[in-house]
Amino acid sequence: MIEVMRLGHRGERDKRISTHVALTSRALGASNIIFTSSDKHVNGSVDRITESWGGDFKFKVADSWKSYVKEFKKNNGIVAHLTMYGENINEIMSEIINEVYPTGNNNNNNNNNNNNNNNSNEKVPKNLLVIIGAEKVPREAYELADYNISVGNQPHSEVAAIAIFLDRLTMGKNLYSEYEDSTIKVIPCKNGKNVIMN
Amino acid sequence: MIEVMRLGHRGERDKRISTHVALTSRALGASNIIFTSSDKHVNGSVDRITESWGGDFKFKVADSWKSYVKEFKKNNGIVAHLTMYGENINEIMSEIINEVYPTGNNNNNNNNNNNNNNNSNEKVPKNLLVIIGAEKVPREAYELADYNISVGNQPHSEVAAIAIFLDRLTMGKNLYSEYEDSTIKVIPCKNGKNVIMN
Repeated sequence: MIEVMRLGHRGERDKRISTHVALTSRALGASNIIFTSSDKHVNGSVDRITESWGGDFKFKVADSWKSYVKEFKKNNGIVAHLTMYGENINEIMSEIINEVYPTGNNNNNNNNNNNNNNNSNEKVPKNLLVIIGAEKVPREAYELADYNISVGNQPHSEVAAIAIFLDRLTMGKNLYSEYEDSTIKVIPCKNGKNVIMN
Repeated sequence: MIEVMRLGHRGERDKRISTHVALTSRALGASNIIFTSSDKHVNGSVDRITESWGGDFKFKVADSWKSYVKEFKKNNGIVAHLTMYGENINEIMSEIINEVYPTGNNNNNNNNNNNNNNNSNEKVPKNLLVIIGAEKVPREAYELADYNISVGNQPHSEVAAIAIFLDRLTMGKNLYSEYEDSTIKVIPCKNGKNVIMN
């Protein structure tokens, strides 16, 4: 199970970027996004998308981000904080993949199946909380995180960072997820648009 | 050489998202971003980043996007349009990689070297123009593009789409580029910040 926490969201200023962070998290297989304050705009956008496109991705608010992170870690969880100051993603990614998908089952393009359905005595998959900051991230986030990871050492975008991180983690597995409860569905095609409305 | 074209940028409404598209393009190895109208905000952000962080990534404006695309294609160029209605990126990506890096030299973590410096009679690397729309993209963009590619079939973000596409294309090669003319430089580290000011 993958969750994403958006730290330091600044309301009006960040509403579109934070919405993109949320929808990117959903499209790449996260179960929910956690904000540290409520935001009607982002919450509404997420709910509208999930209603039409399916699945049960949730917008959640944590009263205390620190308590949330600590609790998450107690429940078989690891925490990756994306920051341009962290370790090189090219070097550290395989370690994270091995924690979250110890049986290697991210390496296909099937739908988002439950990872816990093997009966062997192999390593138990870890839950993953990805922290992505808006403005300045408190020092404690660096300390509470099991991994501080840079997605490059050049300034770019939180949306790009979460996209690249989750894409590398899941290796394209979730990009073409289909949800039974969707009212709209896109069929990939070479030229033009192929959309099915249920 | 990789260029990115932002089609349908809507000024004030899109300024932050378009800035993120531009900076993500820069961080992932594009040479410039082409807008179809001028935008002081985005242009200024791009220039400030390049001044501090180095390299010669440029913000450009094309009077006619169609003429620009047609001209690009004449100069050993191929065009990939990212749209959620296009072909499955998981299936088509290897074909694009083979056009842009026919000698396979995207598969390392070195700096952004010139791809044309081999003297063998191997296939010549193509220049690549990536089109990424803001609002509705004109029908002609689908027709002029050599590839219409979906980065998933769920709605998410233009920033995520360009990030995943370029990351898969360059396989991490450009993420840690170092520029001699930068005044600021980040050294990846496990915990904390390591920044060098020149």
